[in-house]
Amino acid sequence: MRAQPVWMCADQSCAAAHHDTTTRITSGMARLVLKFGGTSVADLDRIRNVARHVKREVDAGHQVAVVVSAMAGQTNKLVQFCRDASPLHDAREYDAVVASGEQVTSGLLAIVLQDMGVNARSWQGWQVPVKTDENHGAARISEIDGSFLTERLEQGQVAVLAGFQGISPDNRIATLGRGGSDTSAVAIAAAIKADRCDIYTDVDGVYTTDPRIVPKAQRLERVSFEEMLEMSSLGAKVLQVRSVEMAMVHGVRTFVRSSFDDPNAPQVDENGLPIGTLICDEDELVEQQVVTGIAYAKDEAQISIRDVADKPGVAQSVFGPLADAHINVDMIVQNISPDGKTTDITFTVPEGDFERAKKVLEDNREEIGFQNIEGASDVVKVSVIGIGMRSHAGIAAQCFSGLASKGINIRAITTSEIKISVLIDSAYAELAVRTLHSLYGLDG
Amino acid sequence: MRAQPVWMCADQSCAAAHHDTTTRITSGMARLVLKFGGTSVADLDRIRNVARHVKREVDAGHQVAVVVSAMAGQTNKLVQFCRDASPLHDAREYDAVVASGEQVTSGLLAIVLQDMGVNARSWQGWQVPVKTDENHGAARISEIDGSFLTERLEQGQVAVLAGFQGISPDNRIATLGRGGSDTSAVAIAAAIKADRCDIYTDVDGVYTTDPRIVPKAQRLERVSFEEMLEMSSLGAKVLQVRSVEMAMVHGVRTFVRSSFDDPNAPQVDENGLPIGTLICDEDELVEQQVVTGIAYAKDEAQISIRDVADKPGVAQSVFGPLADAHINVDMIVQNISPDGKTTDITFTVPEGDFERAKKVLEDNREEIGFQNIEGASDVVKVSVIGIGMRSHAGIAAQCFSGLASKGINIRAITTSEIKISVLIDSAYAELAVRTLHSLYGLDG
Repeated sequence: MRAQPVWMCADQSCAAAHHDTTTRITSGMARLVLKFGGTSVADLDRIRNVARHVKREVDAGHQVAVVVSAMAGQTNKLVQFCRDASPLHDAREYDAVVASGEQVTSGLLAIVLQDMGVNARSWQGWQVPVKTDENHGAARISEIDGSFLTERLEQGQVAVLAGFQGISPDNRIATLGRGGSDTSAVAIAAAIKADRCDIYTDVDGVYTTDPRIVPKAQRLERVSFEEMLEMSSLGAKVLQVRSVEMAMVHGVRTFVRSSFDDPNAPQVDENGLPIGTLICDEDELVEQQVVTGIAYAKDEAQISIRDVADKPGVAQSVFGPLADAHINVDMIVQNISPDGKTTDITFTVPEGDFERAKKVLEDNREEIGFQNIEGASDVVKVSVIGIGMRSHAGIAAQCFSGLASKGINIRAITTSEIKISVLIDSAYAELAVRTLHSLYGLDG
Repeated sequence: MRAQPVWMCADQSCAAAHHDTTTRITSGMARLVLKFGGTSVADLDRIRNVARHVKREVDAGHQVAVVVSAMAGQTNKLVQFCRDASPLHDAREYDAVVASGEQVTSGLLAIVLQDMGVNARSWQGWQVPVKTDENHGAARISEIDGSFLTERLEQGQVAVLAGFQGISPDNRIATLGRGGSDTSAVAIAAAIKADRCDIYTDVDGVYTTDPRIVPKAQRLERVSFEEMLEMSSLGAKVLQVRSVEMAMVHGVRTFVRSSFDDPNAPQVDENGLPIGTLICDEDELVEQQVVTGIAYAKDEAQISIRDVADKPGVAQSVFGPLADAHINVDMIVQNISPDGKTTDITFTVPEGDFERAKKVLEDNREEIGFQNIEGASDVVKVSVIGIGMRSHAGIAAQCFSGLASKGINIRAITTSEIKISVLIDSAYAELAVRTLHSLYGLDG
């Protein structure tokens, strides 16, 4: 059962739908959504390569919907047009201009597919329709009626969809914000009850950590939605956070894989496993690792407010003005006050907002009532992530002693059920990631 | 009253609509459609210049709808993408790709207008909607409900419309074929009962003939729809033929003017006349010239079929196969048979189809039954056009004697109520045009 059934399906009965899925899987035929990003459709040669991936799945008997981004560089060019037209351009007009990039790619891919003998047809967000809210420029999908697409797929036609866009309540094109094509793909997959959503990207899966820092990092075969969500928001830039949230809420099995592979090569590695990472429900994880991966986020800045009055409403007086200034606050640490009168509050903001955040707080000094502000912009947040933590004690202690053994000072700590994050000086970032990667047995 | 009321209006009563128009004109306020082509919106500087033209009309109290083409070169680029994707690309997908050019321009112009303080909003063909037939790639507009746009205009908002496109019965973008933005503009003007449709182009009006051939050619202040139709189809490339047909059928007063003028300069010439040419109903012509202009069409080829059996159905046996081969036949001359048994048929085709047309006829030689084919590809058609011809005798005789006095041989002649066309060797084209221009008193 899905938590938020805002996606209407052709078949409103969940039981019947479940039966359908089973039938499709049993017969070897699946319904797939394939998503290709801007670098994968950067020119006609790459679009032809994308078409070969699509054809392979069609030839295997699957029903296929494809979601495409604009050609690499095209969206930036269109955004720049809008900025040059007016620095304060209207978001509705920006959307009309910028969404044209995906419109071009979807039409071209449909032409190339037809040229290869594949029955294909392109669709824009307003045609499906992919309904969004009225927040132009960064809209959220509110509803997709999958019946129209489902009908086409069942007739054996490939649907090529322009990603990143939908139609707002005022009947205008609305874009989902940068990286929104991932979200489009997952939302479409939910609406048509796809068996899997394949995200083709420029990496071949999700790794235990950044392979540029730890060459021994390994590709994960499977990751749970919850873990991926932590990894996305912590800097593993494989999938947009919103798309992972949506996949989790709607239970969309999402497979991250490389679009640059030879479409006609075997689709499994030397161990017979599919080349990529499946993001799925916890139930599907074959073997639960205690720790799945180590993520890090650079470009963080730390701010500490000293000797704040320890009274109700003080957190609001600090974070309210920051929110009003559209400054995103991430880690927040507040300790129990030792004397019951004053306390210290530490939090992080994006490095680019560091000076502005300090100014906002100084401007509100009287209302907040603090002694002084300290801060550091050369910090990094390193996180240990693993769904197995919930049932294993001592993971945090291991982390702290591991870092201490290398002489790495921890500035702040926050934890969740499946994550431990520490804030450290950025000079130690790589050392910390490597140390923790070995410590939890993730080296290949 | 309009001849073909396929354009639905907000107000279905013609009488009431007529009253509306009168009121608007009396009060000094008019409803205008302004159309800008690709070179007029080639970059942001030119789009700003377009916006200043629009603002001038808004500041004068007019209701304004603007129709724009894609930036110069953009449509060619998108067409090339489709051709590279597949030489035999699907017209529906071609339309989705190519229509994106106008989408970008309409959004950018709306942004620039807003930046200048003008209330403006862009609309695509599918939003208005501009309904077309299913002939993708060269669709014809079937219906425009003007009520939506009219409502916006009456609220004081400028509507910026993507030209060249509409929505087909299968809910897909359909383009109108090259040059279709003129047709879009006239159709929109008919649908919203505009007082005038201003076509901004790279020339400042319609001339008595091509000024490159006859430097003394003069800008015409007014031309009737019928005359303009003859001029358009005969090679005066100011307006697309279909847009003139539509303007005539729906009585849309159309003003051709230059987009490169300074938008803030006086809008009249030294004689106090508006700088441009008004294409209008015959009734509005102030002073009827007998001959209005001299047009010519190069790139013609002549084919003569000798000794065809003079019997019913022979014309069909000649022109049927040519039509099947999509070869456009223009002038057709067939004389009374001197012996009642055989006759000669002469006609013209576009020069590029010359060889193909001859082959089609040879392939059908037996069915047609002719002695031999002759032809010439170095011919030009020169036409004398004037609505006054209907009531003046001797115009044709003047033309023939004028050409004879210069030793110009006439290969074939066709005439209509308001036109005399002669086919001559292309070497004499310029001489013929200059001779006729002087002969009918058109030199400035």
